[in-house]
Order: sequence, then structure tokens, then C-alpha cells
Amino acid sequence: MMNQQITLAARPKGFPQPSDFQLVESPIPEPAEGEVLVRSIYLSVDPYMRGRMNDRASYADPVGIGDVMVGEVVANVEKSRDPKFSEGDIVQGHLGWQTHAVCRPNQIRRISRGLPISTALHVVGMPGLTAYFGLLTVCEPKPGETVVVSGAAGAVGSAVGQIAKLKGCRVVGIAGSEEKIEFITDELGFDAGINYKTQEVYAGLKSSCPDGIDVYFDNVGGTTTDAVFPLINVHARIAICGQISQYNLSEPEQGPRLLWNLIVKRAKVEGLLVTDFAERYGEAFRELYGWVSDGQLKYRERITEGIENAPAAFIEMLQGANIGKQLVRVSPEPSH
Amino acid sequence: MMNQQITLAARPKGFPQPSDFQLVESPIPEPAEGEVLVRSIYLSVDPYMRGRMNDRASYADPVGIGDVMVGEVVANVEKSRDPKFSEGDIVQGHLGWQTHAVCRPNQIRRISRGLPISTALHVVGMPGLTAYFGLLTVCEPKPGETVVVSGAAGAVGSAVGQIAKLKGCRVVGIAGSEEKIEFITDELGFDAGINYKTQEVYAGLKSSCPDGIDVYFDNVGGTTTDAVFPLINVHARIAICGQISQYNLSEPEQGPRLLWNLIVKRAKVEGLLVTDFAERYGEAFRELYGWVSDGQLKYRERITEGIENAPAAFIEMLQGANIGKQLVRVSPEPSH
Repeated sequence: MMNQQITLAARPKGFPQPSDFQLVESPIPEPAEGEVLVRSIYLSVDPYMRGRMNDRASYADPVGIGDVMVGEVVANVEKSRDPKFSEGDIVQGHLGWQTHAVCRPNQIRRISRGLPISTALHVVGMPGLTAYFGLLTVCEPKPGETVVVSGAAGAVGSAVGQIAKLKGCRVVGIAGSEEKIEFITDELGFDAGINYKTQEVYAGLKSSCPDGIDVYFDNVGGTTTDAVFPLINVHARIAICGQISQYNLSEPEQGPRLLWNLIVKRAKVEGLLVTDFAERYGEAFRELYGWVSDGQLKYRERITEGIENAPAAFIEMLQGANIGKQLVRVSPEPSH
Repeated sequence: MMNQQITLAARPKGFPQPSDFQLVESPIPEPAEGEVLVRSIYLSVDPYMRGRMNDRASYADPVGIGDVMVGEVVANVEKSRDPKFSEGDIVQGHLGWQTHAVCRPNQIRRISRGLPISTALHVVGMPGLTAYFGLLTVCEPKPGETVVVSGAAGAVGSAVGQIAKLKGCRVVGIAGSEEKIEFITDELGFDAGINYKTQEVYAGLKSSCPDGIDVYFDNVGGTTTDAVFPLINVHARIAICGQISQYNLSEPEQGPRLLWNLIVKRAKVEGLLVTDFAERYGEAFRELYGWVSDGQLKYRERITEGIENAPAAFIEMLQGANIGKQLVRVSPEPSH
């Protein structure tokens, strides 16, 4: 068996192509003293990775050409030469798009038992924490308020809407297919959904938010967000979590100037990066874990098989193919 | 003598024209029991009034066609039929563009003595309070931080920059003439100034803000603000106070999408309306009064003579003719 890695072959112009990635094989590395060898089970592909493929720093450095793509995995410890981990431990860490990795103990952490291990990559992982802090800390929703979420059927958006419901809000989601709208309304309990591919978003929001919009959690930006701004209420709070509509443009897009709305409504817009909340992960994790365990916070996964299909899974996710969290199954879950 | 009023004759398309206003004369009204007759001394013309000339509500209702233009005045009590005010009292209130007004006692308040009475319309009035709360409450500047102010030579901007200096910040102002840049740097003590009419704002900011921008106080919007966003620091705070570059466009302008910068920098943008801080006016007023009294907070006025010239003064202010506060002297200051 070899270590299979997906490296960045070329920087995409606009939408990523399969040819921007390369599958590379190399011998499985041996852990040195104090190191651990893991085998990936699930790999998370997330919108933020598109930014890392560009040749400019944003909040993190870009991936170099020829480097393994960055990404978080859930993995099985195959060999441990450190007392903190044992063979068979299920761990998670930012180990990249590869089947095997040698790492130091501080790069991985054990996964809490009781929930499916893949959830550590979404609803009780980074996307869940992003939803939690973005909604509760940046937006501070109050019972009875109207919360709008874009990218509503994705890993972050689906959690945002459900947490807002748990806090007593009216929740309207914006997503890109009838299946997604059914998922968020029928399965997740959103009060309404708008399919931006078939409906005019402004008109849809106007009818589904009769009292205006108090909170907007934005994953997509672009024309969807343009439609939200004129409908916000006084003292509205807007969290900017992602701008996925803009990531794959060959040229930056122009749009209407939105800042005047903020004066009229004395509204706040704040950019969100979950790592800024690292000191409070414990608190959030416990709450998310509880909600998932007792069925109050639901999730769905779209699983693509095989590391060789990670680029396709990533591209499909950027195209909106996934409902819920897009994952790549790199190797079978061990039976315990 | 007649009461002279400036009414709204037509809704401007784009930039206001003198023909959008009309001078109307009527007999000076008599105060009834419990009312006060005042004669205006100074009339304030402010950018916000442009918004009231449009036929749509923003944070306040529009002025109707044929109605007296809204505006705050400093005035002399000529007759009082209410025990709270006496002839000769100097008061301020939102009495509109007219030489005389009959009002109820709750529409006016006495002006504190000790400073020139015109300052009640700017540095110790609404523009000063706007600067105070916008900078200190919305932006929370810390000593050593870099603060950028657009519309820096205006009534609000000039106060913002000086208060930021009082708080130990490095302050860079953006304004539209060499004379304005000299005013803010030589007279008000800003660390640097950028003339957006002759300099490239992005390049100017890059060289005058070597440590990036921590706080941006925006009075103008448009391309000036476009140049600021890419240079903000992590956890930057941006107060949107005005968007004067946009008020007189016949068609809304498109611009670059700015929200992605907020994620990269986890920055906050907040719209500002001073009336939201009404409960704290007392505190702010005392501090502003102290700073002005001991010369730490300076101001300049541009005074246009005669109510009939108020439309011209207003239009010139929108064109940027004023350094400091634009006022209209409606009648002479009484000698006390």
C-alpha cells in the first residue's frame, strides 16, 4: 500500500478544474520516536479551501504548487510512538488531502465517543462552531426575531438555522434547489425557504419576512446578499461567514453599494472567522454535542468514496451539489 | 418685516439646483398662550438634508413639496407666552429654514453660555455628538492605533480626527483640497492628509498608514471608501456616518464588493445615527464643551449671509466648498 496524496497542480483561473489537482503516490512514512502514523477515514472539503488555492494570503497562507491540499480529517491511529495515543484511536486534525500522515501528538486530538465519527468534521466540528459563534456571538438573535441564512442547506447554514430555531427565532433559508428547500423546511424546521435559482430573492424575502430581517448570516454574498440589505430592520446584525458566490469568478464582480443601508438602519456587519473563538470552543462543543445527541440539531452528509475523487467532491461542493456536509471517505470506518 | 421661508419646490434629480427651492414670504406669526416666537440667527445646513429632499423615507420622513426645509437653528426669543422662556433668550431647535418661527417650549432649549452661540450647531451640537459617539462608541479607538477619517475637513470629520488625537491615535484625514489638507494637518494636528482630488487615495493611505488602518470613520463612501477597505487591519472598526459621494447621483453607482475584506480581517462595519445616543448626550456634551473651552478641540466656520442664500450655501456645502461647518447667518447676533 502507498500513501496517496492530492496536491495542488495549478492555480485555478475562475472555477477549479480536475487538472488543477494531481494524485501523487509515495511510500507510507514511518513514525519516528514521539510521532504517530494515522490513516485517514473521512476528509472534509470546505469552501474556504478555494481561497487557499489562490496565490495570495488572506487570513491564511496559500497552498504552494506541488503541496498537499490542506484539510481536516478524521483518522485512525495505525502506529503510535508516543504514549499519548494508541493504535486504534480515532483522532482528528488538519492533516491534508492524503490517505496517511505522520504527525506529532499536538497536531491531532481524540474524538469524543457517542456520535458518528464523521460529525467531528461538521456539526460538532468547525462548521458547527462557526454557526454557533457566528450566530450567537456576532448576531445575538433574540426570541421572535427574523433570521435569514444564505447557503442554508450547507454544513454551516443548516446548523445556523436550527440553532436560531432553538433560540426562538423565525428562520428563513436561501438555497439553490427544491430538494434543499425541502430539506431545510421539512426536515430541519426552517419557517420558509427561498430557491434563489427559481425565485426572485428580494420578492421571496419580502413575503417570507413580513416583519423585516433582524439577523442575516451570510455564506454566499453576491446578488443574494444584495437582496437582503434593503430589507434589514433597525439595529440588524449581519455576520459575513463566507462569500462563496465570489470565489470562482475570473474577475472581481461589481455590485450595488450597500453601506447606506447601514446608516438608515444603524445596522452592524461583522466578518467571522471561527478560530477567533478558540478559547470558547469547549463551551460551544458541549452545547452542540448535547443538541445533536438529543436530536435537536440534525445534519445530513454527502459522502464521496475514495481520495482520488476528492477534487471532484470539492468541485461539486463549490457547484452546490451537496445537501449538508460534503465529505470524502478515504478508508472504511474501523469496526469497534 | 415678513417671515421668510425656504420651501422645497421640486425634488432634485441628481445634484440640487437653486430652482428646487423657493423663497416664500408670509406675515410673522403671533405666539398663542404657551408658545414662543423666535427669530433665527444661525441656520445649519447639513449633508443629511439632501436625503430629506427625496421622495422616500430613510431614517426620517421626506420633506413635502411646498414644505419648509428642515434644519436646526440658533435663535433669539422675541416674544414668549410661556414662563419657561424670556425675551432675549438664545435657544436652539429644529425650526427649519425660516427667519421666524412660533414654537412650543419643548421644541427649543437654551444654549449654554461661554462659547460662541453658533457652536451649538456644530462642535458642541449634533455634528460634534456624531463625531463623539461614532468614534468613541462605535470604533473604540485605542492609543497608538491608526484612525482614518473621510470628509476630514467637514464639521463631523474635523471633530473626529481631533478626538482621535486626544485619545492618542495616529490620524489620517481625506479631503478634497490643499487648503483643507493644510487645515487638518497644520491647524488641527492630524498626522497626515490625502487630497482625493489630486492623489490616488489607496497609494496615499498605504504610505501614510504604514501599520494599516484600525479605525475608519466614513462620511463620504464611494471610491474613497473602496480604497480604505483593502488596507484595514484585523479587528478593524468602521463607522458609516455619511455617504455624501452618493447623495447626488442620478443613478445608483456600482462598486467593488467589499464584504470579503471583513472576513479576512474579522472587521466590523456599523451604521451610525446620533439620535440613537440621545440618553448619553449630557456626558458627551460636557466633554466636548470642555475640550472646546480649553482649546483642545478646534473648529472653523463658513458663514453665508442671508436666508435667501441658504440654498446656495447648501449646494456649495454638498460641492465641498466649506472648510469646517457651513452656516447661514439669518439675522445678526444680538449684543449682550
